[in-house]
Amino acid sequence: MSEAAITGMEASAAKILTRAIEMERHGKYQTALVCYQEGIDLLLEVLKASKDPNKKKHYRSKIEEYMTQAEKVKVLLERLKQEGKYHEQLKIEDNATGHGYSAIFSPYMDETVVEVWIEDAYIRSYHQVNNFLRFCELLCTRCDNLKTVNLSTSTDDNNSSNQQENIACIARSLSQRGIILNVNYVSNLHDREIRFSNGWIIKVGRGLDYFKKVDKFCIGFHDMNQRPCHSTTVDIFHSKHTRDR
Amino acid sequence: MSEAAITGMEASAAKILTRAIEMERHGKYQTALVCYQEGIDLLLEVLKASKDPNKKKHYRSKIEEYMTQAEKVKVLLERLKQEGKYHEQLKIEDNATGHGYSAIFSPYMDETVVEVWIEDAYIRSYHQVNNFLRFCELLCTRCDNLKTVNLSTSTDDNNSSNQQENIACIARSLSQRGIILNVNYVSNLHDREIRFSNGWIIKVGRGLDYFKKVDKFCIGFHDMNQRPCHSTTVDIFHSKHTRDR
Repeated sequence: MSEAAITGMEASAAKILTRAIEMERHGKYQTALVCYQEGIDLLLEVLKASKDPNKKKHYRSKIEEYMTQAEKVKVLLERLKQEGKYHEQLKIEDNATGHGYSAIFSPYMDETVVEVWIEDAYIRSYHQVNNFLRFCELLCTRCDNLKTVNLSTSTDDNNSSNQQENIACIARSLSQRGIILNVNYVSNLHDREIRFSNGWIIKVGRGLDYFKKVDKFCIGFHDMNQRPCHSTTVDIFHSKHTRDR
Repeated sequence: MSEAAITGMEASAAKILTRAIEMERHGKYQTALVCYQEGIDLLLEVLKASKDPNKKKHYRSKIEEYMTQAEKVKVLLERLKQEGKYHEQLKIEDNATGHGYSAIFSPYMDETVVEVWIEDAYIRSYHQVNNFLRFCELLCTRCDNLKTVNLSTSTDDNNSSNQQENIACIARSLSQRGIILNVNYVSNLHDREIRFSNGWIIKVGRGLDYFKKVDKFCIGFHDMNQRPCHSTTVDIFHSKHTRDR
């Protein structure tokens, strides 16, 4: 790696570690942990690429320092989770990018998830059912032990046969991977919520449909991380009781 | 993290590090490096989560060992690149998954890429132009300093106006990000090749169109990593001279 590349990588590490500290200060511990991890990974790259023994020593001590801090955050987070007191909030600004499903949900999806509950009244139109499919694709990638997905949504009165047919396609495709999709069509859904059996609960104000439309053949049409968002709030909770009602 | 989760992560690290060693043995040094990095990252997670001081010591020494090995591979790779002797080959089997553009091309895309040349006769039909868009989206994500994309493809005689209109949309979208797309419609393209200005040259036997069709509303429709592939060969070279003709 060239010196310029190392400098760039070090600057990136500094930026994300600053963000980690800031997130920690604001009590966003799960996000802080992800930032610490990414920053430490970058510093490890810098350490490996660097030739100067003094600099190597400096990077090693920095890495050690951030790892210790990340461990502290992990312990604190674990305690809050155990006490059922965890709450984190993310505000997505109008036109912001970088908030694809993977960016929002990945920190909470892992091999401990065996069941997911999605309540979202608007899994109805063509693009909304596609949103749900993208969410399921992410589940398939991240949750190796997933067995059941439960979707509660409302019926599209103008086009219910298409809606139900398209969701049935997703169900068949999931079943080929050993995952059952249960669908409840309900009329009085008042909340939007995604709940994982590992205890994480994510409430996106707009549900899964928080992206702005991007024209065909434009950057961001496929990659939702590059698509501008509507403003919305994401609330993240943790409950020891995964289904307490 | 639970003991079970740590054990699972350690097993994953062992698996990918075995793959790193195997790749290195077969001379696939760039792929080996990526595997080493991923394996080391997992071991670092295990190290952080582990409580037992003896185990921690064991993991630290393992991490040190693999980092040393990865540095050796990096030096060797650099020498081969300098000598213009680097060649790596990946065979994608029929119906294999996990070979989205990010998996194939990311190791060679970085901030040193300022220009890209794509020669692919079949950026013609609707899904093929979408393939090209997906490739451009990846470029936008990975290559922070990209200035110019050069596409050489052939004209779709049955539908040239649609083809050219759709590619023009991509050009407008890229230009909004300060990236120029130059398109050459040529009739006698005999090779398929993607060439990055950092010296990496990737030849996919089938060009960008190596995915099988997946029905709408099925897993893999959006996430190309989950889409089965046609069998094809990927050849990777490095040339100090980025444009030697």
